[in-house]
Amino acid sequence: EESDQTELFEQAIEWVEPGEIALLLESLPISERIERWHQVADEERLAVLVAMRAEARGVILRALSPEEQETLLREMDAESLIELADDLPDAVVDDALSRMNTRQRQWYEQASQYSEESIGRYLNHDVVLVPANARVGEALRLLRRSPHAFSEHAYLVSRQGLYEGTVSLQQLLAATPDQRLRDLSLQPLSPIQAQSTLSEASDTVEHSGFAALPVVDAEGRLLGRISLKLALELTREQYEARLMATAGLDEEMDLFSPVLRSARRRAVWLGINLLTALLASWVIGQFEATLVQVVALAVLMPIVASMGGIAGSQSLTLVIRGLAMGQINRGNLVPMLRKEIGVGLLNGGIWSLVIGAVAGIWFGDITTGVVMATAIAINITVAAFAGVLIPVMLERAKIDPALSGSVILTTVTDVVGFMTFLGLGSWLLL
Amino acid sequence: EESDQTELFEQAIEWVEPGEIALLLESLPISERIERWHQVADEERLAVLVAMRAEARGVILRALSPEEQETLLREMDAESLIELADDLPDAVVDDALSRMNTRQRQWYEQASQYSEESIGRYLNHDVVLVPANARVGEALRLLRRSPHAFSEHAYLVSRQGLYEGTVSLQQLLAATPDQRLRDLSLQPLSPIQAQSTLSEASDTVEHSGFAALPVVDAEGRLLGRISLKLALELTREQYEARLMATAGLDEEMDLFSPVLRSARRRAVWLGINLLTALLASWVIGQFEATLVQVVALAVLMPIVASMGGIAGSQSLTLVIRGLAMGQINRGNLVPMLRKEIGVGLLNGGIWSLVIGAVAGIWFGDITTGVVMATAIAINITVAAFAGVLIPVMLERAKIDPALSGSVILTTVTDVVGFMTFLGLGSWLLL
Repeated sequence: EESDQTELFEQAIEWVEPGEIALLLESLPISERIERWHQVADEERLAVLVAMRAEARGVILRALSPEEQETLLREMDAESLIELADDLPDAVVDDALSRMNTRQRQWYEQASQYSEESIGRYLNHDVVLVPANARVGEALRLLRRSPHAFSEHAYLVSRQGLYEGTVSLQQLLAATPDQRLRDLSLQPLSPIQAQSTLSEASDTVEHSGFAALPVVDAEGRLLGRISLKLALELTREQYEARLMATAGLDEEMDLFSPVLRSARRRAVWLGINLLTALLASWVIGQFEATLVQVVALAVLMPIVASMGGIAGSQSLTLVIRGLAMGQINRGNLVPMLRKEIGVGLLNGGIWSLVIGAVAGIWFGDITTGVVMATAIAINITVAAFAGVLIPVMLERAKIDPALSGSVILTTVTDVVGFMTFLGLGSWLLL
Repeated sequence: EESDQTELFEQAIEWVEPGEIALLLESLPISERIERWHQVADEERLAVLVAMRAEARGVILRALSPEEQETLLREMDAESLIELADDLPDAVVDDALSRMNTRQRQWYEQASQYSEESIGRYLNHDVVLVPANARVGEALRLLRRSPHAFSEHAYLVSRQGLYEGTVSLQQLLAATPDQRLRDLSLQPLSPIQAQSTLSEASDTVEHSGFAALPVVDAEGRLLGRISLKLALELTREQYEARLMATAGLDEEMDLFSPVLRSARRRAVWLGINLLTALLASWVIGQFEATLVQVVALAVLMPIVASMGGIAGSQSLTLVIRGLAMGQINRGNLVPMLRKEIGVGLLNGGIWSLVIGAVAGIWFGDITTGVVMATAIAINITVAAFAGVLIPVMLERAKIDPALSGSVILTTVTDVVGFMTFLGLGSWLLL
């Protein structure tokens, strides 16, 4: 069954680009992954590793022979080392640094001062720089010779390295060679601060209308740039992190990491959920006496919890998206709550009638239907309220709502659902 | 409480770009949204509408006066009309088409032949075209005068409009003006087929190393291009659709759509979930006699279902991500299954011991603990199996696993959980 993958890989490796080879390697079981890795051309290996997710890459890094490590280190630049450093032993990182030229080492040190959440750490250094007092001819020469992609802009810097503005290739072509750059009207493009978060920075580039934007430090020194390509990679990673977080997983997770390692990393989430499930069970346990007498309650109670959970997760998902896009804040929280509770009351009302009728007919008892309908209506409405407030409060407490929002919500809907349903049941059916 | 939003809006509207104004408008309750809309400058209105999500935009379109509609229609180009057509009455679309020049109308007709899932529908027409038999000087003149962003490439076309290759601005600058374009070595960039899916097309651009790639039809005619900016927008939309689908929501959903409309759109998902919850309840109902005698089973049963659901959704999330990236296929399904089941057995084993002990102590009965432990171990393992197979089968049946995967999975883990737990309970505890 592994022949398809092997064949795919052999076709692919000849012509595809490092990002695709990285995806293919990630899709291979570990022993095969290491084997195939040796087919990757030497000059592509570093780029492939950088493009891989950390966990899948770790498997390869740990299997490298000293010679292979040596070859990798020889080509290491600042951007690659920033990406790989966490997975390499300190001695290897120091070795790589000692082989770099001064400029690369300086870039590495600059980048490593910024946290993993800010663009300063991940920016590209492939910029075309010109002294702000240079002339058009000089800038044109530099741009023409530039080995970088998307070199349609040159950045003007002062003697102190401060960012002074941007000129475009088109502008330069329209000017005369001995005009001073300072005298051209510069491009209306404002630099991004290196402390900006990854999502701020990538949104800004996306909306700027330019293929890349310069990045400056707090003093205004030009550090590098963020291109649309980098913005796309960062955006993809953030969305993947959000998708994986809904199941308590990590974006870097490897499809084929060893069973023991996978089990350990996922166990925490199961443990947290066990605690919330125990809480729900404890609530049910308070009504043991009722359950013994009215077994219909035991049969129907999962429906109450489940409907609340679904309705709540609809509000939660909508609000988490709004928060991620910066659309929900103090200013529109109240109208948002009002609307979601409205939806909850309406859907709660309608579905409680349907479910109440089903329950009443099933157990041939109107009161059972009434208990069911009331509990469902209450739980769906509470769920809408919780679905808005929980992520907003988590966001304010700087806790990721994509990760913990749904556990907390389910706890609320389970507890409220069981409590109202069994409470009403004890009151009306005993 | 609406003053923050208003203030934000008034600051923003003066300098930000249409995409940001669109986000801001979406974050306003409907009445305020329409009011603020009138502050948007005439020349930006079309771009703002195009950037908005369909449902939020619909609110504004429906509130337009005939004069405002008229102004919008006057500026309508093919790309905007493709985006807005679904929300406009047919008569208005026809009106817009009749005001367009021939080329725009042709573009509109070309684009509308492609489905909403293919890049042919959304491509950009802002390309610089040169006849393949032209000379360098001519191509340079066209590129310099191009009003489009990212115009670092010109596309060569034959008399019949067939795509023949790409030259870069840098290449042209290095050549002599009277060289024939055909004699330059063209850029190694292969065109994208217009029938490609949105995700194929955006991944290809992301990995290409170019700022944009040409798009051709089945006959090889050049239709337009997809830029990194468009790729980023499309990628974002796809991820948002996946995130929203997990709660049965639609990417286009409006934060502030009217309560009635929101409730109706979400009711379907609640209804589907009700059916699966009823199925789970029916399973429980089969064990009524047992529940009456051993009430501990009623107290503990939600834990069994919940732990299975969580473990299963971890496998499901990992597999859905792998499928979306094209990493899971026939070739590695078996090793994938083997690994996930391994993780399930291990975590199932460990947590069943913990939970079994807790249950045994809580109810002072070893057999209850054994029943609990066994049911948990079985359910977590089955969940791992289902978490892999369900999305793979849905994908093969061309059903979106992000939308329906978790409902089906929860049904499986609920049914299997209740059945094994209550079945074992009936057998060992009666």
